[in-house]
Amino acid sequence: MTAPDKIACIGAGNIGRAWAMIFARAGHDVALYDTDLAALDKAMAAIRIGLDDQAKLGLIESAGVVLSRIRPEPDLGRALVGARHIQENVYEDIELKRRVFAELDRCASADAVIASSVSSIPVSQFMENLTGSRRCIGAHPVNPPHLVPLVEIVMAHSTSEETYARTAALMESIGQVPVRLNREIHGYVLNRLQFAIINEALHLVEQGYVSAIDCDKIVKHGLGRRWAFMGLFETNHLNASSGIREYYTKFGPTIRGMLKELFLTPHAVGPKMVETLAHEIEAETPSVDVPARQAWRDRQLAALGRHLAAMADAEKNGRSS
Amino acid sequence: MTAPDKIACIGAGNIGRAWAMIFARAGHDVALYDTDLAALDKAMAAIRIGLDDQAKLGLIESAGVVLSRIRPEPDLGRALVGARHIQENVYEDIELKRRVFAELDRCASADAVIASSVSSIPVSQFMENLTGSRRCIGAHPVNPPHLVPLVEIVMAHSTSEETYARTAALMESIGQVPVRLNREIHGYVLNRLQFAIINEALHLVEQGYVSAIDCDKIVKHGLGRRWAFMGLFETNHLNASSGIREYYTKFGPTIRGMLKELFLTPHAVGPKMVETLAHEIEAETPSVDVPARQAWRDRQLAALGRHLAAMADAEKNGRSS
Repeated sequence: MTAPDKIACIGAGNIGRAWAMIFARAGHDVALYDTDLAALDKAMAAIRIGLDDQAKLGLIESAGVVLSRIRPEPDLGRALVGARHIQENVYEDIELKRRVFAELDRCASADAVIASSVSSIPVSQFMENLTGSRRCIGAHPVNPPHLVPLVEIVMAHSTSEETYARTAALMESIGQVPVRLNREIHGYVLNRLQFAIINEALHLVEQGYVSAIDCDKIVKHGLGRRWAFMGLFETNHLNASSGIREYYTKFGPTIRGMLKELFLTPHAVGPKMVETLAHEIEAETPSVDVPARQAWRDRQLAALGRHLAAMADAEKNGRSS
Repeated sequence: MTAPDKIACIGAGNIGRAWAMIFARAGHDVALYDTDLAALDKAMAAIRIGLDDQAKLGLIESAGVVLSRIRPEPDLGRALVGARHIQENVYEDIELKRRVFAELDRCASADAVIASSVSSIPVSQFMENLTGSRRCIGAHPVNPPHLVPLVEIVMAHSTSEETYARTAALMESIGQVPVRLNREIHGYVLNRLQFAIINEALHLVEQGYVSAIDCDKIVKHGLGRRWAFMGLFETNHLNASSGIREYYTKFGPTIRGMLKELFLTPHAVGPKMVETLAHEIEAETPSVDVPARQAWRDRQLAALGRHLAAMADAEKNGRSS
């Protein structure tokens, strides 16, 4: 498969802009579509700043070159001409998604894949009963998308395997990491995992076992050190001398005992809990400093991405030599 | 407070050896005690190899210098002479822990803190009803302890604040990161968080939503990228322009909705599930290759620790300049 060279990004909000930058920095020509001309102007200004930041972070060589590949386009027909991949990023509203997908399916060329950045609505609710249901698919990025490579590829009941294969190959070719969700589920997988651990943390903090700050330390100086390059199950695999089978057998009774002791009830996240969290977290970074700290996060993510890539290269060279 | 210069490590298994290396590389003199002379010989041989590895990883300058600070000691009285911190690492058995703590409390000098590496038994069950209950405390490391800095400091009901302060200060002075568990709870915090997310992952994999390999990708290329330096709540804080209060308010209904949809039942982790996991994970790293992959993990952890420390230094210098 040849990578498509024309991409249409539908909707010029934060996620649409991020995708435009990601596709363009990988060499593709992007039409960024929005019905709102003012929104398009605002988006192009933000993209200019975003690309300058990416150049400073060492993610791209020339902001100008990448910017020249992104074309603001208020006409849907023109945005879709020649596009083999369409990335939809409109507001998370079921009726809006339905309307937009019906229109995209009607106007796009027959060989185009239509992917949605949808983050919580079940994809089947707006991708089915279309002539081109088979070429519609979910492609949910992580925030910030240009610095965290993972993309959840979500299959609707009607999505074809060819659509999956093309979308996954495209994502890999632009440096993102696709994973496959075989069926849709509320929250998809990444957010379910994120909120399963947060739910336990909320109970522990509320009941006074640990502070929110220490809870963050446990993740960043403990669990996160391993999960930055291994994931949950490989971590288990390497915690027993003959691997994951031994791990879950030898520690099976302990693990089953622990699972039964978890809180396992949905935390209400009431105003008092939010106050407790805000009180602690804002003491470290006041809310007025959040934008500066977001810039710090982005520097950290860019540098971590480079570090992990360099380690992977070194291992590869070490092995082949 | 002056850092103690004499440390006694009780028990020469994997954890006792790891602590001996951690204290010794920070400059302390360590007596490594075990009743079993053969175990002591084996431990010293393993420590020699471990220190050579740490020198190769760039964690210490001279394996020989660090090794010279570790003394195998089969006599408890001699091991405890002058020790201001005692780190107990005997097998995870309640009766054994009780016996050892009673003996340590009887033999140690009055100003010594007695810390246990206990990983699951509630600390109160073997630290209370001792003359020196106030100076007994939990200090649970993460595997591998010399490469993952977090230590859970667990307060028994009887532990004094002075004991906490001294233990936390000692851990910080040797480059570990202490967090405070105000009260004991089954599994402490790190493992509860770890198994809360694993529980959700097990359900998702078992029901066919996602493969175990893709689940690991979601963590390492998604969630883990952020958690390597932010933790759970700071990640939330930086996902809304004015911080965590806005995050949990704006997305409150979505988050509460998601928490209710989580599996939130303890997975049985039966033999079929273990088989599914092993089948997938061993296809990437066969169990025979686990030791080599553990060495890879250790190289990754050492390099990641150096990377994060360098980033922190750069930020500090950037801020102060």
